[in-house]
Amino acid sequence: MTAPTALAIVGVGKIARDQHLPSIARNPAFRLVAAASRNARLDGVENFATAAEMFDAMPKIEAVALCMPPQARHAIAAEALGRGKHVLLEKPPGATLSEIENLTRIADASGVTLFATWHSRFAPGVEPARDWLAGKTIRSVRIDWMEDVRHWHPGQDWIWEPGGLGVFDPGINALSILTRILPVPIWLTGAELSFPENRAAPIAARLSFQGPSDVTAEALFDWRQTGPQTWDIAVETDAGKLILSSGGASLAIDNGVVSEAPEAEYDGIYARFAELIAARESDVDVSPLRHVADAFMLGRRHIVEPLHDRAGDRH
Amino acid sequence: MTAPTALAIVGVGKIARDQHLPSIARNPAFRLVAAASRNARLDGVENFATAAEMFDAMPKIEAVALCMPPQARHAIAAEALGRGKHVLLEKPPGATLSEIENLTRIADASGVTLFATWHSRFAPGVEPARDWLAGKTIRSVRIDWMEDVRHWHPGQDWIWEPGGLGVFDPGINALSILTRILPVPIWLTGAELSFPENRAAPIAARLSFQGPSDVTAEALFDWRQTGPQTWDIAVETDAGKLILSSGGASLAIDNGVVSEAPEAEYDGIYARFAELIAARESDVDVSPLRHVADAFMLGRRHIVEPLHDRAGDRH
Repeated sequence: MTAPTALAIVGVGKIARDQHLPSIARNPAFRLVAAASRNARLDGVENFATAAEMFDAMPKIEAVALCMPPQARHAIAAEALGRGKHVLLEKPPGATLSEIENLTRIADASGVTLFATWHSRFAPGVEPARDWLAGKTIRSVRIDWMEDVRHWHPGQDWIWEPGGLGVFDPGINALSILTRILPVPIWLTGAELSFPENRAAPIAARLSFQGPSDVTAEALFDWRQTGPQTWDIAVETDAGKLILSSGGASLAIDNGVVSEAPEAEYDGIYARFAELIAARESDVDVSPLRHVADAFMLGRRHIVEPLHDRAGDRH
Repeated sequence: MTAPTALAIVGVGKIARDQHLPSIARNPAFRLVAAASRNARLDGVENFATAAEMFDAMPKIEAVALCMPPQARHAIAAEALGRGKHVLLEKPPGATLSEIENLTRIADASGVTLFATWHSRFAPGVEPARDWLAGKTIRSVRIDWMEDVRHWHPGQDWIWEPGGLGVFDPGINALSILTRILPVPIWLTGAELSFPENRAAPIAARLSFQGPSDVTAEALFDWRQTGPQTWDIAVETDAGKLILSSGGASLAIDNGVVSEAPEAEYDGIYARFAELIAARESDVDVSPLRHVADAFMLGRRHIVEPLHDRAGDRH
């Protein structure tokens, strides 16, 4: 067995603490040695204010997981790859498609691994859904992805800024599942985007897609859902109906539950990262972000009522 | 010499009459045999109301040039490629990036040529500019692309609809030149988009890009220019300053005119289409449209005064 990969983390926020750190701790292929964060510190590792200081001080770092908001990801990813370090990107992998192209070029030139992760693809129902759909004739797809932004993203202003994607931040999870499980390609044919009067990103979106042989897909993303939360994908085929619910955790075929397993998305991500590093391969599928870019380009914009997500927040 | 390729044209509007038809007539590699258009007829060839009727009635058609607005292009392109016909796409090649991916797949599967054209790349100054910039260190780029939409696109409502791209319809010409001549990649870092209150597409845009080693590029696109029209790209390098003006027709290095040649963009396009067909190759570079999609995704939207482009037009 080879020595564990010396890993650093950049961006110590909610997603890092809730998901990355526990999965890293459980995976013997990695040893967390450092963290870079403007505001936070991690116990038991070296801490730095910036990634550049960290890379200068600790040349032994072999791999880095980038968990900060997407707007700041490219510069640090490019520097890490240029220094010969393997890079794991949280979703979405960047603020533009072109910067991801650039990262892919640098990773290839440096001979290191770039892994653009889509955590929802590691939900337990996703691979069984893909296997069941393979070879079947798809008729239609319906996605309902409705949640309460005030609950899930309280005070996260970056998510409302350009590059933060608004409701596409959760919606892209649905698109990452859909592009993994469907045996045919789809392309956007129309979109309606609802922007709160006081925000630079949409709070709701309705997307229409087509595929070959009259396949259609409709997606509803809405961040104004205050009751039960919904993360469902339904696929009608010539051989029955598939429903992936709870964000991919539960799979049902023709209303019979096929599988329901405990969530372990980030354990799956780090297992895959270790495989990719061992094989010196990259895994960069931009198709979910490409559909989002298409939606911004082709979408019709509507202005809706302002969103105030904190008491006293009136900006 | 092989027999000329039997060519049909779909979409008989201004761009077809002004540019495609004269260049096709001058190129012995093609013989125009049919046209499909809802409203227009061409003398001397078979005319049809739809592309599907045309393909059914004339199986001898070997290639087709699609000159209608981008929103309608994908369905006809997919049908033509699926029937084994070579396809030339006017710019922009589609309304989304994903539909172009789909066309590339079909072309590869059918073994035919798909040519996504960027006519400005065939302006006479472009290849000499690319040659001069090769190997030089780029410092900065400045694009000014300012024209009067009322003059150039009178009453063309499709250009203001989602998918019509607004001021990016001309601006993408500048991006098509820039991505051809620069020896380094660039990626968008910010954009400001100005939408007229009564329109679904922007009338002006300011784009900021970065490249490796602190290269920066700024682009100003504005459709409200009523005086002299400007289509200029200036590139500062370690070995002097290059200016491509008049949309790529005129090239100057350090203020000395290097070349100024008569415009013959579409002759160049059809010469290249003939080469591609002979070699059974495709030429699909989506990078200009990818930058536009990035700008819509990352751009901050501003609402500006309404645009009324015709007397009595108050919608």
